[in-house]
Amino acid sequence: MIPAIAIISVLPSLLQQIHLPSRLEPVPFTQVRLEDAFWAPRLETNRLKTVPHNIRTCESTGRLANFARAAGLEPGEFQGIYFNDSDVFKMIEGASYTLAGHPDPALEADLDRIIAKIAAAQQPDGYLNTYYTLVEKGKRWTDLPVKHELYCAGHLFEAAVAHFQATGKRTLLDVARRYADHIDSVFGPEKQHGVAGHEEIELALVKLHRITGEKRYLDLAKFFLDERGRDCKRKLYGDYCQDHLPVREQSDIRGHAVRAMYLYTGVADAAALTGDPGFIGAMDRLWQNVVYKKMYITGGIGPSAHNEGFTVDYDLPNDSAYAETCASIGMALWNHRLFLLHGEGRFGDVLEQVLYNGLLSGVSLDGEKFFYVNPLASRGRHHRQPWFDCACCPTNIVRFLPSLGGYVYARKEDSLWVNLYIAGKAKIPMPAAGAVQVVQETDYPWSGKVRLRIEPENEAAPEFTLALRIPGWCRGAAASLNGAPIDMAAAVKGILPIRRLWKKGDAVDLDLPMPVRRVESHPAVKGNQGRVALRRGPLVYCLEGADHSISVRRIALPRDAQIEAEHVPSLLGGVTVLRGAGVVSEPSGWSEEDLYREAPAPKKVAVTAIPYYAWDHRQPGEMVVWIPEDPALAEKTSDRH
Amino acid sequence: MIPAIAIISVLPSLLQQIHLPSRLEPVPFTQVRLEDAFWAPRLETNRLKTVPHNIRTCESTGRLANFARAAGLEPGEFQGIYFNDSDVFKMIEGASYTLAGHPDPALEADLDRIIAKIAAAQQPDGYLNTYYTLVEKGKRWTDLPVKHELYCAGHLFEAAVAHFQATGKRTLLDVARRYADHIDSVFGPEKQHGVAGHEEIELALVKLHRITGEKRYLDLAKFFLDERGRDCKRKLYGDYCQDHLPVREQSDIRGHAVRAMYLYTGVADAAALTGDPGFIGAMDRLWQNVVYKKMYITGGIGPSAHNEGFTVDYDLPNDSAYAETCASIGMALWNHRLFLLHGEGRFGDVLEQVLYNGLLSGVSLDGEKFFYVNPLASRGRHHRQPWFDCACCPTNIVRFLPSLGGYVYARKEDSLWVNLYIAGKAKIPMPAAGAVQVVQETDYPWSGKVRLRIEPENEAAPEFTLALRIPGWCRGAAASLNGAPIDMAAAVKGILPIRRLWKKGDAVDLDLPMPVRRVESHPAVKGNQGRVALRRGPLVYCLEGADHSISVRRIALPRDAQIEAEHVPSLLGGVTVLRGAGVVSEPSGWSEEDLYREAPAPKKVAVTAIPYYAWDHRQPGEMVVWIPEDPALAEKTSDRH
Repeated sequence: MIPAIAIISVLPSLLQQIHLPSRLEPVPFTQVRLEDAFWAPRLETNRLKTVPHNIRTCESTGRLANFARAAGLEPGEFQGIYFNDSDVFKMIEGASYTLAGHPDPALEADLDRIIAKIAAAQQPDGYLNTYYTLVEKGKRWTDLPVKHELYCAGHLFEAAVAHFQATGKRTLLDVARRYADHIDSVFGPEKQHGVAGHEEIELALVKLHRITGEKRYLDLAKFFLDERGRDCKRKLYGDYCQDHLPVREQSDIRGHAVRAMYLYTGVADAAALTGDPGFIGAMDRLWQNVVYKKMYITGGIGPSAHNEGFTVDYDLPNDSAYAETCASIGMALWNHRLFLLHGEGRFGDVLEQVLYNGLLSGVSLDGEKFFYVNPLASRGRHHRQPWFDCACCPTNIVRFLPSLGGYVYARKEDSLWVNLYIAGKAKIPMPAAGAVQVVQETDYPWSGKVRLRIEPENEAAPEFTLALRIPGWCRGAAASLNGAPIDMAAAVKGILPIRRLWKKGDAVDLDLPMPVRRVESHPAVKGNQGRVALRRGPLVYCLEGADHSISVRRIALPRDAQIEAEHVPSLLGGVTVLRGAGVVSEPSGWSEEDLYREAPAPKKVAVTAIPYYAWDHRQPGEMVVWIPEDPALAEKTSDRH
Repeated sequence: MIPAIAIISVLPSLLQQIHLPSRLEPVPFTQVRLEDAFWAPRLETNRLKTVPHNIRTCESTGRLANFARAAGLEPGEFQGIYFNDSDVFKMIEGASYTLAGHPDPALEADLDRIIAKIAAAQQPDGYLNTYYTLVEKGKRWTDLPVKHELYCAGHLFEAAVAHFQATGKRTLLDVARRYADHIDSVFGPEKQHGVAGHEEIELALVKLHRITGEKRYLDLAKFFLDERGRDCKRKLYGDYCQDHLPVREQSDIRGHAVRAMYLYTGVADAAALTGDPGFIGAMDRLWQNVVYKKMYITGGIGPSAHNEGFTVDYDLPNDSAYAETCASIGMALWNHRLFLLHGEGRFGDVLEQVLYNGLLSGVSLDGEKFFYVNPLASRGRHHRQPWFDCACCPTNIVRFLPSLGGYVYARKEDSLWVNLYIAGKAKIPMPAAGAVQVVQETDYPWSGKVRLRIEPENEAAPEFTLALRIPGWCRGAAASLNGAPIDMAAAVKGILPIRRLWKKGDAVDLDLPMPVRRVESHPAVKGNQGRVALRRGPLVYCLEGADHSISVRRIALPRDAQIEAEHVPSLLGGVTVLRGAGVVSEPSGWSEEDLYREAPAPKKVAVTAIPYYAWDHRQPGEMVVWIPEDPALAEKTSDRH
């Protein structure tokens, strides 16, 4: 029934990791099967389309050949950009996750062949980077700020862990360990000082430590984290790389957004394992800075193209929003870690916000086109592309989506946590209560009604707590246990705890009302003044040209306009759209001889909003998330084609 | 019945002036009696309150004593500012106008006594300025840019003409002529070069020329107009005094607003007498610049306090609007002259706009308090004052209002023009048709229904044209003659001509519909974006604190809100108010921890708008003219007391 669960038996270290009792531990993707109408088809598309698309493109762009050439298996020069190895590792990571739920001998064999080339490219001392082996031989570790050696290593480690988790094979894990051992022999307090210009190695070393139990990897991760922003032995790289202040002293989130997210994910991982109060305090401050001052309503971060990253508080332009897909994935990674660290709903809320909006927008419904940047408004010229020279986003999507099952549940000693509402089944080994099967039934995100059936395999299982995240967007949430209402006042920090001796047949019903909500921004966000965004449940909506006969940038939505939700199964893979009556701004028509004129009567227009993630799948057109409430703030003319 | 008309017989020069046949000639105030419910009480208040208030204050502030001291009639030093003589002259001008309609022996005797002191202060060579006589003896004409000698002279000439027109006495006119002759002996192409830092002498010399027939005065006016902005014989003063370019080359209106208006009024006067195409072209360009780019909706001009004047196109801030009362009066003077010059409705429209709004706001309903500046929004701390050290505005109001009758009608050889709609009677001597009595019946500005009875005294009077201004604000105007509809398509450039053999009993009915109109500004006016002003007929409305229990700066008026007009006889001397349902912005409540939040439901509030001219007569409070259409643009918090 849940084939993935069979695999767990070969991975004892995964469920018996070192962990502080007060921290949550994720239930890994191997234990969870998503069976809903929203995510399951997307994961299937990822498996059947995006993974082969990624493999093909890694092949056609020379990314795979680079390994064969570095190994001396075939002639030829290095192709592409110096960090292209990472794309192959990320593709392997994604493909491996899919294998966990869907055994696929052909794919597994493909991976084995690719892994063999990778292993062959590894140097006798464990070093593994095709760019340095083929192009800058002898210059290893001489350009840490720019050249991504440690970044590529990190992605190798993540791929190796995933491949081992999914297949039980140690082929890539052994390569990873040899390389990690080599890096550990180069860097350290008494060895070479330095950090990665692009973070990733830190979280990857923690992951490798968790799967192998090797303490040196955790120590090396901590060395890199402690080294960042300290200028005692080297020149700092500056805030673009978060290398301007020691992490424990950082408060204002800065620089390249993906780098920041990967760094802080590693910090949160290390904090979970060490309890380091300096790291925890920095995470709290940085989280508040980004979530309260620098996050798009889509969960996207990093408004500026100039540094692919952060600028100043409240600088959240819509048309020029960079909001890189990888940064959204990083935001999901980091918030998941913070949820596990603190067990507070607000972190799950942000994870959910970015997941359903600014992350999911990054991939087309057919799984073969990708956004690198995710603006919140478009004049009709922004479209998903099959690939990019810098292919970080397609290869991040392909590895993130199939890992989604690992974000849904968590556990502590005597509590079982539900973080995301996605229909499916999970088998969760509780420390005291033994294996518990959880079945979720829901049409989330279209409906907020969720039924959770909790079934301990052990009929004499002791009491434990079911901890449910009550989404921060939700007003008037209700819950019942076997039909009897639960007092919602028991919810603390966004978590509703239900403690009891769970028996087979127990069912918890959660009702999270999903009215259409108008959301406004802090007035310091200049571009959103006088504008609202529409949300329903976790989804942010947008107006797209395809649904309107006039420019959507000319549409205003008065505060008192009625808006109704309607599910349209035939549209965009099945979406709930929002319909209402807007008002159209009139073309300007201001002449040199008008200073004042009679304001024209409002002209009504039928407005349809679709989920933001689903835009740019029909004819090319304009898009807006933030809709003016007054036609005076809408554009007066259209520049549609 | 119209006592003023008796006086005309002693003033033949007034109705037999030199004029070009194609120009309109005003029907002077002495021929017109205003008998309406709107203006007649205001003129009576001006006569009974403002004139005595001005005389008393000229007395108590030493302005009158300055003349006695300069004459050696009493000991003492000069008191006040160097241009204070002008206030006395303006007061005399205003008092004289009132005498025309309302003989008042006591006031006439007061004026005679004051004029006697002025005459005594005149120096043997005709020079007359108490500041230079008492303070800077020997320095006459040495500081033209700053010291206002020519400005004061101009106001003397205007007072002298008015006093002569109203009383037939030549006492002040003789003083004025002697001074004008003296100035003519000092300035000229072959004499001293220079212009007044503050214009006024130009229009006053034309006026003196018109009443006396003396060509030298017109030539001297033309000298000063030609001299301005020419640097061949002297250093220019710059654009603050419009002394940066020859007038004929000016296009962009600049500098001190009152100075500009007085200059261009003199230019229009000279152009009417000379037909100078350079002057006419400049007037056209400057009018377009100010009316299309630099005029408040109240007709006020000159947004900035720093130069009491103009800045750049579309710079029309509301809270900090300077919009000096004197500049509004200057705008009325200039537009009246342009109406006479061109016979086009648009100039009468601007005259009407400023008259009913930004000019009338300058004086309180009780006639004893004055605005110097007329902002379009207030936080509750701007109030009319009884007087100012620089008293130009109170003394401009006191002279302008009683001259209003002179702005209502005009005539050409065979046409009789109605420019303003104000109930009353006029006896207009037409060149060919002889005296024609015009009776206006209307509740203007509260109603747009006007009945005009046209009664030639000569039963065999030949055909002539009745030319009616159809206000530019009006849509759907209708007219009928003795009950028969008139084709409105005959109207050209805002003027409806009706030509016929007029007979006693002929009546023209005009219907100028006055729905409530929302007006928007050109989007380049930053402060008005997303805002509307309410107008009804010629009146601009405002929201005032006294009518609202919450800050009026928190009120928005959605585009589709119903607004009804209601006449309230008991309020503010009887006003038509506008009532509708607005929406209140919610106090901000944004914390450091909110970046997005649910937009609150709109909270309704009853809104009452009053005419702008009538604000600041009840408890001190806030005021706005430009009302946001969306609560997001309204202020979120109140700073009311």
